[in-house]
Amino acid sequence: MKARRGRTPEGTEAPRVIVVGAGFGGLAAVAELAHRGARVMLIDRNVYSTFQPLLYQVATAGLNPGDVAYPIRAFVRRHRARFRLGRLTGVDAAARRVSLADSGQYEYDYLILATGVCAAYYGVRGAAEHTLGLYTRHDAIRLRDRVLARLERLDIDHTKDVNITVVGGGATGVELAGALAELRSTALYAAFPEVSKASVHIRVMEMAPTLLAPFAEPLRAYTCEQLRERGVDVCLSTQISEVTSDCVLLTNGKDVESDITVWAAGVAASPDVADWGLPQGRGGRIMVGPDLRVHGQDRIFAVGDIAAIDGQALPQLAQPAIQMGRHAARQVAALVAGEPTAGFRYHDRGIMATIGRRSAVVQLPRGLRIRGTSAWLAWLALHLVTLLGNRNRLSAMLNLSWRYVSWGHGGGIIVGDDFPDEARRVGMHPSAPA
Amino acid sequence: MKARRGRTPEGTEAPRVIVVGAGFGGLAAVAELAHRGARVMLIDRNVYSTFQPLLYQVATAGLNPGDVAYPIRAFVRRHRARFRLGRLTGVDAAARRVSLADSGQYEYDYLILATGVCAAYYGVRGAAEHTLGLYTRHDAIRLRDRVLARLERLDIDHTKDVNITVVGGGATGVELAGALAELRSTALYAAFPEVSKASVHIRVMEMAPTLLAPFAEPLRAYTCEQLRERGVDVCLSTQISEVTSDCVLLTNGKDVESDITVWAAGVAASPDVADWGLPQGRGGRIMVGPDLRVHGQDRIFAVGDIAAIDGQALPQLAQPAIQMGRHAARQVAALVAGEPTAGFRYHDRGIMATIGRRSAVVQLPRGLRIRGTSAWLAWLALHLVTLLGNRNRLSAMLNLSWRYVSWGHGGGIIVGDDFPDEARRVGMHPSAPA
Repeated sequence: MKARRGRTPEGTEAPRVIVVGAGFGGLAAVAELAHRGARVMLIDRNVYSTFQPLLYQVATAGLNPGDVAYPIRAFVRRHRARFRLGRLTGVDAAARRVSLADSGQYEYDYLILATGVCAAYYGVRGAAEHTLGLYTRHDAIRLRDRVLARLERLDIDHTKDVNITVVGGGATGVELAGALAELRSTALYAAFPEVSKASVHIRVMEMAPTLLAPFAEPLRAYTCEQLRERGVDVCLSTQISEVTSDCVLLTNGKDVESDITVWAAGVAASPDVADWGLPQGRGGRIMVGPDLRVHGQDRIFAVGDIAAIDGQALPQLAQPAIQMGRHAARQVAALVAGEPTAGFRYHDRGIMATIGRRSAVVQLPRGLRIRGTSAWLAWLALHLVTLLGNRNRLSAMLNLSWRYVSWGHGGGIIVGDDFPDEARRVGMHPSAPA
Repeated sequence: MKARRGRTPEGTEAPRVIVVGAGFGGLAAVAELAHRGARVMLIDRNVYSTFQPLLYQVATAGLNPGDVAYPIRAFVRRHRARFRLGRLTGVDAAARRVSLADSGQYEYDYLILATGVCAAYYGVRGAAEHTLGLYTRHDAIRLRDRVLARLERLDIDHTKDVNITVVGGGATGVELAGALAELRSTALYAAFPEVSKASVHIRVMEMAPTLLAPFAEPLRAYTCEQLRERGVDVCLSTQISEVTSDCVLLTNGKDVESDITVWAAGVAASPDVADWGLPQGRGGRIMVGPDLRVHGQDRIFAVGDIAAIDGQALPQLAQPAIQMGRHAARQVAALVAGEPTAGFRYHDRGIMATIGRRSAVVQLPRGLRIRGTSAWLAWLALHLVTLLGNRNRLSAMLNLSWRYVSWGHGGGIIVGDDFPDEARRVGMHPSAPA
């Protein structure tokens, strides 16, 4: 199956490839396969693909959910693939068939699993029940509306401070804490003039003695200092033993008040994966060989966060997922052509994390490091370029620039509704959600 | 209280005015009062003001909810007023105090009620339980996601057509039906290439023998013809006796299949209003005199949809609400200055309704009528200008132009999540909403 548009070697029908999961890995696989004339079906449990790196902007009222969610049907149309909304419930490798909840069964010649991961709680009691995530569109909306509801409550009752705890000092936690700090120092005053900044506490708790573990020490130190300068309470070497509805209990015996606790401390495969009958490794991830085929399988691949290559998970980032997705697609082509598969080699293009306005860290291969405003501009540019869809790109540009220009005037925050059960939790009963 | 910025006659403290409801009427009142130096508190049950005329665009995936929802706190900041999130539960006219659910009690010197109306079901069985509204942000999101979920279901199972019924042939119903027809003829094909347009049925049902009753006959006829040309089944002189989960029963005995039924057939005051102890008239509206003061009250006004002036409700539109809001504010100023109040006179600036791309109707005073593309451009321009907030305006311009340019390519629809209970209703079980 050479890379000739739409054609297959004479006498051969184009192979049917099913890709499950429309994140970075799945979309990269679909794009590469379409290029090679396969008949591709992309399956996802949502009708949209979520651009996770910008979810924290949705969560801090800076972007619309629609800016970071791209309709999969538009994507597959461009790549001459089909889409099926559904949740994977089973894989029958012998019959070469996948089962979806309520959406039937589908046969494949090759299968690429790119379903990603979800929050891992490491046995911390109460974490699943009492914390919010930041991995899905729904998570981001819920977090945004809970924070804003809590601020409304503070405006009514000044006696009880707001305590927001972000658990996890990786990029996700740092970016969220930084954006919350910005919301507090700019929009908060404009929108809630009677509320003092000092009544809103933002903490980051990290088990390790440092934030941003994959980064070099100078960048870690810079990040920590920047967050503290912005009024974030950075708690390192801090381990949580339990989470309740209004506080966080530490292993050293201390209790810390926490109205809103966000869990950004780790990921693992969803429990669903166990139903698929495939070998699982670290964190429940699917074990694959060097060519990304699942151990013991010749037609099933796994790519992205969900894959553990010979037991090792790559960094849970976009680049590895994209590269793996493309690689798996190329191996499908090789197999169809009767050629041997090749091992995957990850090309580290660098990592980055943002802290706030004009403040980010970028670490490129060969020791090149950037921080501050140039890093921040690079971060902005990269994320806008990789965001799917021109409409989304323009909308995100509009909203991000609006945020940075006019937040101080109280304008431009994108607000929504309390979830009714949430409003009760923070002590308010709005009428029917509207 | 002359219109001098921030000052009041010497020796007098600025009067405290409470405005309840942040729709067209309430915001107009606040803006006028701020201008005159009153101490204003604006109360609403949401943190945002909803631009209702564009909700049908949210419902048909053309605009973000955030484009039509403006944060009230940004508004009050501009007008030097305060905001309190809360739902009005009682009015104590003797003590000059309002009570809010969970948000305490507040005293006023003058009170302006601008709380609007909600759907009225006229005793039609099943209407409240089985229909969707289009009056709130939440309504619009829910309708959008239900329609898209139903289309996803159609893509899986071609045997069962999609039937969407819009009840009500006024501007709301016409605009929604027209936009749904456009979604079907442009984005549908691009996004669901295996689904036939003929499988998606859109109906408008109107009790009267004509659509758009307030408009002149030629514009009504044009509208009806335009909708029919766009494949909408217009059912006039059609009265509904009952709504069930999958069909609509007519008074003539016929049953019409309906997966999704939208109720845009009439409005009335919310049942809450009865708790406020004020005289109610037609549709539960609050009875006011010519100067917009509530019958029997000297310090309480009602404006907008919720008011019935000597028993008559004005058209349930933006202009009357805006004009009444300003008028009430001026009467407050008159009362403070010890001057007599003046009667309200409505200046009819015209009415308009849109049908689809390049197709709208505009009816101006003195018999001037416009239809077609110029009417549509006028409609677009007016709505963009009156939309609150530059960010929202720019975002709406971006999204509306995107819709009209690129829908045919399947891009640009703004999608979301099924509400979990909704997905079960249309036969799908997505995993945890994301």
